[in-house]
Amino acid sequence: MRIVSLAEIQAAIAPEAAIDAVKAGFIAHAKGLVECPEPTQIVFRDEQGDHHGECHVKSATWEGLPYAAVKIASGSYRNAARGLPGAGGMIVLIASETGLPEAILHDECWLTNVRTAAAGALAAGLKPVSKDATLGVIGTGTQAEMQAEMICAHLGLGSVAVWGRNPTRAAALADRLRAGGLAATPMATVREVCHASAILVTTTPATSPVVHLEDVPETLHIVAVGADTPGKTELDSRILGRAHTIVTDAHQECLSNSDFGAAVRAGEIAEDCDASFGEMLALAEPDPRLARDGISVVDLTGMGVQDLAIAEMTLNALADSR
Amino acid sequence: MRIVSLAEIQAAIAPEAAIDAVKAGFIAHAKGLVECPEPTQIVFRDEQGDHHGECHVKSATWEGLPYAAVKIASGSYRNAARGLPGAGGMIVLIASETGLPEAILHDECWLTNVRTAAAGALAAGLKPVSKDATLGVIGTGTQAEMQAEMICAHLGLGSVAVWGRNPTRAAALADRLRAGGLAATPMATVREVCHASAILVTTTPATSPVVHLEDVPETLHIVAVGADTPGKTELDSRILGRAHTIVTDAHQECLSNSDFGAAVRAGEIAEDCDASFGEMLALAEPDPRLARDGISVVDLTGMGVQDLAIAEMTLNALADSR
Repeated sequence: MRIVSLAEIQAAIAPEAAIDAVKAGFIAHAKGLVECPEPTQIVFRDEQGDHHGECHVKSATWEGLPYAAVKIASGSYRNAARGLPGAGGMIVLIASETGLPEAILHDECWLTNVRTAAAGALAAGLKPVSKDATLGVIGTGTQAEMQAEMICAHLGLGSVAVWGRNPTRAAALADRLRAGGLAATPMATVREVCHASAILVTTTPATSPVVHLEDVPETLHIVAVGADTPGKTELDSRILGRAHTIVTDAHQECLSNSDFGAAVRAGEIAEDCDASFGEMLALAEPDPRLARDGISVVDLTGMGVQDLAIAEMTLNALADSR
Repeated sequence: MRIVSLAEIQAAIAPEAAIDAVKAGFIAHAKGLVECPEPTQIVFRDEQGDHHGECHVKSATWEGLPYAAVKIASGSYRNAARGLPGAGGMIVLIASETGLPEAILHDECWLTNVRTAAAGALAAGLKPVSKDATLGVIGTGTQAEMQAEMICAHLGLGSVAVWGRNPTRAAALADRLRAGGLAATPMATVREVCHASAILVTTTPATSPVVHLEDVPETLHIVAVGADTPGKTELDSRILGRAHTIVTDAHQECLSNSDFGAAVRAGEIAEDCDASFGEMLALAEPDPRLARDGISVVDLTGMGVQDLAIAEMTLNALADSR
């Protein structure tokens, strides 16, 4: 069994290349070629019972692919204050023919971050926007930064508006994005970011809405990435109630873990109102619903097929580079 | 992150020591101190759609323990014919405080085999039998051998009767057990094994019953280990219908994956007729129901807490040996 370090993984693939792999994974899933067993979630609590971290285990098989993947991504929100990485983990690739593990990609959660940002870029790309449009980013963590970079690179955008609960962290994120060549501006309120933006990506671990209906202009395409565990939610359910189109990556998981489910439980939307992300990505032409003015929401909770797609691409890239 | 090889693991712990750790795990689970998320199962199929292997992912957290565990055990039934190990895998220990992986026990499925055999020994031990009783073993694989060794060591038994679909493999298993000091005899039929035995352990991956009601004497304590995936079953449902006591390790999983569920669906038993294995192990005195003549069945599907218990014990043993 091969054990591949983060440095080897990062040298083998460019984040941008991940977008195609992840897209192919979602499309294969929509075509029924992929099985993603229900993800496992472990919640870490302290002695007071406070939820301070999670471990997510996701897995997938893909008809005709030589590997299945089991992905572990795990961390604590308190690690940054300890000077530790926020998250760690690995993707185990298992040969479909023998059932034996062939490789551990010890990615320390990097491939999870990349495949999540790749999905965000694909979700943002469902909305036709001009290249001078601004991307709004809610959140200031690793995923906020990677989403901003990958969405802007994928859509050719150059302008980013940032908001975070902690203004210092928001300013620091804007600084880092500027260093990467983007015109990034920290803003004082969620409302300012929303009104400045054509596309908004939300990347917080919030357990109550951060973006309210009153913050949102008449037209906004929202990619909701943060909520991935029961109890997490970033968007006021009324925003989904107002949206003309709602897209989910994984219907059942979004129902239990994410803003889509919160809005269903709030009675704002019907449980069957969502379109499939994979089916939309499979379309030869962009879905005309997304070209309309008004609010659209893509709710992403993350799927094992993303992990399998990016891990397989990584292993192939490593083999090619030998 | 530490990566521990199979050789290091095997040097660190004796299989017998695992019994106490696994027992403590089941008892902690029965007391509500353990959370085991629903296990994940991946089924490997060939191009004809035939099921030739599985990957099981199990996980657990235990209140007050410094680690959570995620276990991957995976393989194909066709590996032996290819000269490959039947199964592989690893247990990842994750620090509860930081959520970061601390160690990969690359056990190649050995710890899974040991903790499964440890549970079998504990299940066999629920039945008071004399030391000259015979253990019957149905199946001839790795788990058949480990169950025979651990049950006999734990209960002080010296005599084993073996049956397998393949008589050559049954004879070879009996030879190996004899080399280990047990009086082991291969027998021609399941019925002969059952009638020679006080305790029977079944360890096959069968998808239709191997042991029929007609094979079973009036008194027999059966430990059913093989069925751990929907569609697998080893015991004629009428045996469970006839049993005065049925014990399950994990009620929900046994309902979907195992002989208990098959008998419920066959209408032979009520869904709530089972006793909890962990609660029985927690009793100061043996449960008097098991002392009765007649048929009793312990249905084991395997729990993440076993993996966590044995992995934590292993890591502690490695730390002590430094």
